[in-house]
Amino acid sequence: MTYDRLETASPPSRRPRKPAPAAGTGPVIGRALQILGAFTAEHPYLSLSDLARRANLPVSTVHRMLGELLAWGALERDAQGRYRVGLRLWEIGSLAPRSQGIRELALPHLHDLSALTRENVQLAVRDESEVVFVERIGADGAVPTLTRVGGRLALTATGAGLVLLAHAPAQVQDEAMARPIQRHTPYTLTNHVQLRRVLAQIRVCGYAVSDRQLSADTLSVAAPVTTADGEVAAAVSVVVRHGSTRVGPLADLVRSAGRAISRALHTPVA
Amino acid sequence: MTYDRLETASPPSRRPRKPAPAAGTGPVIGRALQILGAFTAEHPYLSLSDLARRANLPVSTVHRMLGELLAWGALERDAQGRYRVGLRLWEIGSLAPRSQGIRELALPHLHDLSALTRENVQLAVRDESEVVFVERIGADGAVPTLTRVGGRLALTATGAGLVLLAHAPAQVQDEAMARPIQRHTPYTLTNHVQLRRVLAQIRVCGYAVSDRQLSADTLSVAAPVTTADGEVAAAVSVVVRHGSTRVGPLADLVRSAGRAISRALHTPVA
Repeated sequence: MTYDRLETASPPSRRPRKPAPAAGTGPVIGRALQILGAFTAEHPYLSLSDLARRANLPVSTVHRMLGELLAWGALERDAQGRYRVGLRLWEIGSLAPRSQGIRELALPHLHDLSALTRENVQLAVRDESEVVFVERIGADGAVPTLTRVGGRLALTATGAGLVLLAHAPAQVQDEAMARPIQRHTPYTLTNHVQLRRVLAQIRVCGYAVSDRQLSADTLSVAAPVTTADGEVAAAVSVVVRHGSTRVGPLADLVRSAGRAISRALHTPVA
Repeated sequence: MTYDRLETASPPSRRPRKPAPAAGTGPVIGRALQILGAFTAEHPYLSLSDLARRANLPVSTVHRMLGELLAWGALERDAQGRYRVGLRLWEIGSLAPRSQGIRELALPHLHDLSALTRENVQLAVRDESEVVFVERIGADGAVPTLTRVGGRLALTATGAGLVLLAHAPAQVQDEAMARPIQRHTPYTLTNHVQLRRVLAQIRVCGYAVSDRQLSADTLSVAAPVTTADGEVAAAVSVVVRHGSTRVGPLADLVRSAGRAISRALHTPVA
């Protein structure tokens, strides 16, 4: 794992929002990607008709495209005739520096934090206006969490997301302020003025606390992970049962883990 | 993580070998997949010209296709104008049951085995005639290994691969016998008659030993992971320094881990 792999661990330049498909190859690739996008954690196996329905494409179109996708290994077909995401796609996906790259460097530190706290530990990155969880280390007896590896949530919904939002470009923060905040529990913070204040506090204190914002019995404490040039590349967080732990000592541990992972990002490794 | 996700953890029905591209959408999707396939662990960041060269496509063709790939998030572009595999592709890839699915269930057992042995532990699956490593847990001070998560090798090159080959369909074994075996070290077994004997022993003993076959100082011990219907879905292995450990006790531990992971595959989990 070389440092070169992570030198651009920052979120990508803002990508264009769903351009109208150009004549020619655009629509075809777009449709192939719609087919891939039909698979979710809740639906990892899909029949041809379910796949077409979820991809919002005619069955004949999907059927025609499957040949290449199967041949290359982007999709696989099982004995029951259902389709699933293929190993080859997973392999290419594992090259994504912003998930696998950071994850590999962070993993020992995530394990240390989970062992120390005996709680669930997560690592997340920002993708535009959402938080994406790239790793989650569970601990026996820890409170169940709603997140899964590869899962996405709004930035405001979790501690890790708040850390990422607090350090996101002004444009991203402005957009978050312009959108209504979805209420998940009676405690969810939905007031934008308060949100701005919380983000400012996060930048000052160096950590975020999300108390019963997503589910009514969990609290998460999160801290930033930075690259050598000071950009926040990810956030590490611990999720506990509300009321089970004093936040102060937990914040110290999480910030310490954030710094350890940051040092791993900064250190050239042969 | 439900049992349903793994009920078809077996390798896919044999996929067609690189069919001639059909008129219409085939060539376009095929070219898009060539672009994705240009990225490797050694080349996670590629300029437009390098990407075109490695994908064996004209720069203009690649450039035209990038719009959709970037918009969807299959690829990302950094501030230096280099392309990398995108977070979104990693997310979809993480849904592949044969890698992430098995990996999630196996992870606690892999950690136990690594903690017990204080060595590198790996989990691998078969894809046609190759072994693909879906997880690798490192241990401080353990011998460095050549494998990486998402990496591929010939089935004959490692202990995990030998386990998978020993339990592969006859056609796959026949093809392995028909191909020359690449020599990596002075000890690499290249004789097909001996290979058949080794595979038979693996099925009888329940584990494989690969001694200095891939690199001159490592030895791996591997055992199968089976689904509820008895199919070998994966292999778990430990890699040690040649001569540092007695194989017998290590084989017991690895087989025990294989059985534990198998039980996790068999058990319906809410």
